[in-house]
Parts: sequence; C-alpha cells; structure tokens
Amino acid sequence: MNEMNTPIRTHPRVVTTVAELQVAARALLEAAAGDDGTASLGLVPTMGALHEGHGRLIAQARAENDVVVVSDFVNPLQFNDPADYERYPRVLDDDVALAGQHGADLVFAPAESEVYPDGPPRVLLSAGTLGEKFEGAARPGHFDGMLTVVAKLLHYGQPDASTRASTRYRAYFGQKDAQQLAIVRRLVRDLGYPVEIRAVPIVRSARGLALSSRNQFLSEEQAEAALVLSRALFLMQERAAAREPLRPDDAVALVRSAPGVDLDYFEVVDPATLEPMAQNCAESPFVGDALVLVAATVGSVRLIDNLPITAGSV
Amino acid sequence: MNEMNTPIRTHPRVVTTVAELQVAARALLEAAAGDDGTASLGLVPTMGALHEGHGRLIAQARAENDVVVVSDFVNPLQFNDPADYERYPRVLDDDVALAGQHGADLVFAPAESEVYPDGPPRVLLSAGTLGEKFEGAARPGHFDGMLTVVAKLLHYGQPDASTRASTRYRAYFGQKDAQQLAIVRRLVRDLGYPVEIRAVPIVRSARGLALSSRNQFLSEEQAEAALVLSRALFLMQERAAAREPLRPDDAVALVRSAPGVDLDYFEVVDPATLEPMAQNCAESPFVGDALVLVAATVGSVRLIDNLPITAGSV
Repeated sequence: MNEMNTPIRTHPRVVTTVAELQVAARALLEAAAGDDGTASLGLVPTMGALHEGHGRLIAQARAENDVVVVSDFVNPLQFNDPADYERYPRVLDDDVALAGQHGADLVFAPAESEVYPDGPPRVLLSAGTLGEKFEGAARPGHFDGMLTVVAKLLHYGQPDASTRASTRYRAYFGQKDAQQLAIVRRLVRDLGYPVEIRAVPIVRSARGLALSSRNQFLSEEQAEAALVLSRALFLMQERAAAREPLRPDDAVALVRSAPGVDLDYFEVVDPATLEPMAQNCAESPFVGDALVLVAATVGSVRLIDNLPITAGSV
Repeated sequence: MNEMNTPIRTHPRVVTTVAELQVAARALLEAAAGDDGTASLGLVPTMGALHEGHGRLIAQARAENDVVVVSDFVNPLQFNDPADYERYPRVLDDDVALAGQHGADLVFAPAESEVYPDGPPRVLLSAGTLGEKFEGAARPGHFDGMLTVVAKLLHYGQPDASTRASTRYRAYFGQKDAQQLAIVRRLVRDLGYPVEIRAVPIVRSARGLALSSRNQFLSEEQAEAALVLSRALFLMQERAAAREPLRPDDAVALVRSAPGVDLDYFEVVDPATLEPMAQNCAESPFVGDALVLVAATVGSVRLIDNLPITAGSV
C-alpha cells in the first residue's frame, strides 16, 4: 500500500464495456494477490470532468487498495433538464490524465447503450424522503437517478466472482455531497451490497472554502464573502467542542451578515436519516453524531458545504 | 454434478445470520473447488412452507451446482394484509426436512431483525408498471416488497468475495410465478446483479393441472373443471406449432365453458415486458417468444397458470 503523500503516476487503461472491465480488473487483482492470495479493489464513481476534489478520492482509493478503478459516465437519469445533460462537459482525455496523476489503474468509460442497453430501467429505485429535501428539493428525481446508476456501478466494479483471489471491495464518495453519501450508504445497507463505502473528507482552501468547480465563477469579493459558510460550520463545531447546545442561531446570523450571500438552508441533521436534530440538541450540551449542512447562493453561484460533528460523552 | 433423477438426501445446516451464511457457504465452496479451483452456488429463495414445487427448484439447483442454499424467510413487505402475514405458515423443521430430501446444503432462516435491522428500508425498489397488472392488480405493493427482499437475498447468497475459489452464482425461481420471474429478471438486468437467473418449469399433474398448494382446497369436480386452464394454454401452443395466428378466442371460450370456472385474465404477453402481444400476433402466423398467462377462480380458489411459447421462423 502506498502512502497518500507519495502519489504514483499511472497511465490508466480505458475500458468501455462491463466485460472488459471485469476481465481487466480480474487480471490486476490476481497479479496483485501476494503470498496470502488477497487483493483489494477501490471504485471511484464519477461523472467525469474531474477536478482536484476527484483527485483526492482517487488518491485515497490508491492508498487503500491494490487496484483502483475510476468510472467516468455522465448519467442521463440524474439530470432534470435535458439541456443540462447535453451541456455537461465530456473531456475523457483530460479525465484519464488526472486519474493517472492520482494513481488509477483503469478508467471505465461506457457508452449510454452499455449502461442502459434496454433503454430506461423498468425496475426503479427511489431514495424516498431522503432524496426530497435539501439538494433534492429543487431537483425532483435527481437522487433517484443517481441511485439507479450507483446501484449498477457498484455491481460492475465488484471483483468478478471468478477471480482466483480473496478480494475486498471499497467504493469512494466525497463528503462534499453529503446527501448523496447518506443515500448511497442507505442503498448499501438496505439492499445488502457487499461493498464498504468510504467517505473522503472535503478539501478546503487555506482559508476554509470547500473546493468546488464552481468556485472559479466567484469574483474575488464573492470568494471572500463565501468564506462565511465554512466559518459558520466551524462555529458549530466549536460549540460542540465546548459542550454547548448545538443551536444554529449565531451561525445563521453570521451567514446572513455576509454581503451578497443568500442563505438557502442551514440545518443540523442526523447523518444517517438527514432528519433535523435541532429540536433534540438545542437545549442541552450535544452528545453524539450530527451533520451540519449549509447551502447558499453567492452572486449567481450556488454553493454547498457541510461538516460532520461528533461530540463524546466523556 | 448429480443427475436430477438421482436425488441426494442431505441434512441441511440451518443458519440464521448473513455472517454465518457467508462463512458456511465459503467453506463449502472452497471444499468443493476441485483441481481447477472452481465451484458454483445455487440459491433458492423461498418463504418457507415448502412443497414439491419448491422441491423441484431445489433439485434443479442441486443438479447444477456444488453448493445449494435455500433461503426461508417470510417477507412482511410483500403482504398487503398484516393478518395474512401473521397467518402465514412457519414450519421450519418440515422445510429443512423437505430441503434435505432434495439435496440442500444450507437453509438460511433469518429473523426479521436480521433482514431489516433498521426497520423498513428507506431506499425503495419498485417494479413500476411490470408490477401493476395481472397478479399485482389486486395486491398493490406486493411486487415492490418482493423485489426489495430479493434484491437483498441475491446479495446475501452471493459467494463471499473472500472465497478462494473461482465461483459461479445462480438463483432459482419457478416459472409458475411468471410475473415474479419476469420482474426478478428485470431487476438483475436493470441493476446489473452478477447472478444467473434460472427458471424452473411448472410441475403438472399427469392430466395437466399446475401443481399448487391451493389445489388441496379443490373438490374432485372443481379439480376436473380446473384442467381447462392448462388445456387452454396447450391449445395456444398447438396454434403456434401449426403456424397459425395466436388468437386467444377459442382458448378463452374453452375456459368460459367449464362449470364453476370464473376467468380473471387470459392474455398473450411479451415474456420480458409483460405487454400484451395480442394485437401483434392475432392476424399472422406467430413467430418469436410469447408468454400466455391465465388466472381464474374455481369455487373459492384462485389459480394461476402460464406457458412460454416459442415459434421458429424457418
């Protein structure tokens, strides 16, 4: 296993069919299986247009596994607007280069006809109430479409049963998309998928801004104003560390005080169910696990950020 | 591999947790892996109360695999009526005996808390329009609940990735529940499950009546009248063999002519989509694959039967 601070550059092989992916991954797993006959595979599902946030996911998968697969597929099911789907950047060559900078072995880049050979699925997955709030509120069906493709990709990436090695299987998702992560975790629990879901922490600028491909659309003043989002999250963390109630009032006031920042939501939720916890933790010192979610529009750019908070009971 | 006509009697081991099942199946697979290091596992998902129809599924799994697992779990999600769920027979000792008569190695009999440790699933599966017609019409949610538990059981039964053998995985469903079979096949395609679905033909009495645990509730006269269902199906098959159009008129008239038989539906459908094919095949000789479905109430007993029909193009 390689340390995360010693990245390996690779020249990932691009495969486009599930059959190719399975054969290629099997060969790599069998080659990697050492004297004890064990090997591990990490899958990083993406929609391409990779940036350093994805790079961090790939690097963590590289550090923890013998074989790293990056899937690169723009899933039509999770777009509400067909024009958005058409416009979505497709830059496979750049993606392969970035995946290689972080040590990926294989890039799985299937055509739509490979993933949906029969047209739209007839068996439907729904995130239910987990997908209706927060980021799902303005994008009906988005999380259901995401779930459907992740349900397939988790099977496609899984080490083939014919592999002559004892294998482990992990899939990597960013903490940045906290709602997606919670829904994927629930998929794996509810349908009993044989995979370990690994959450990769948010990458932040030195001043705290969560990395996002949208940050490039912020002016200097807007980027400065956007710092209030992470400051508000860290304020909540300080509250928990000081064994105070997790009341969001001050944090919300802080966000509202920033010029040009239009707050959408700021909520303390249960990390597993995304149900609001404010009523349970606003009065007494907070103990346990919580997730603080924030979304705001800065100028015309919508930004999300979040922070998992764990407070011990001593 | 054993021929189906030389059944092996076994004393299946009963396991109640997913972890036990995985460990036990792994040991059996590794023991069965011969010089070429390959082994296969067949899963037969049931709700218990096993009869000879299930016996046929188990026997086929036995004939085709090194390791045979029968799951025995009454799934609350697929009952519309809680009283039906409570009343459903639970006869594990009898089930284990019957599973053993047909050569099962393991019986997986989990408690509800093992299958649904977090209560009802939050991520939901739906059969969509495939589950709304025919048997689903009177049982809203039935096929969605069935799908949810099958989605889990297919993962639970899957050979553990840490197994040091090259494995194959098959799951067995009866052709009798044709709609369930079509929906499970679609689940496997739509979510990319790494399992081969094997359909086991309907077992019939010498005179053609499809085996069902409900047949015991038929009087002698009713059992005689019920023969019309399979006769009507075979009439359709003769039509196809004679290169005639697949018009259901005569078959329907035949069913309606039987005393005390109340026809619910008689339909020629596409085996994959369950969409009616009558319009496409009523005028010219039928070529291709079709499925003829029939349901009727005889006395107070609801019976279903079906026949897949394949007509060559020569």
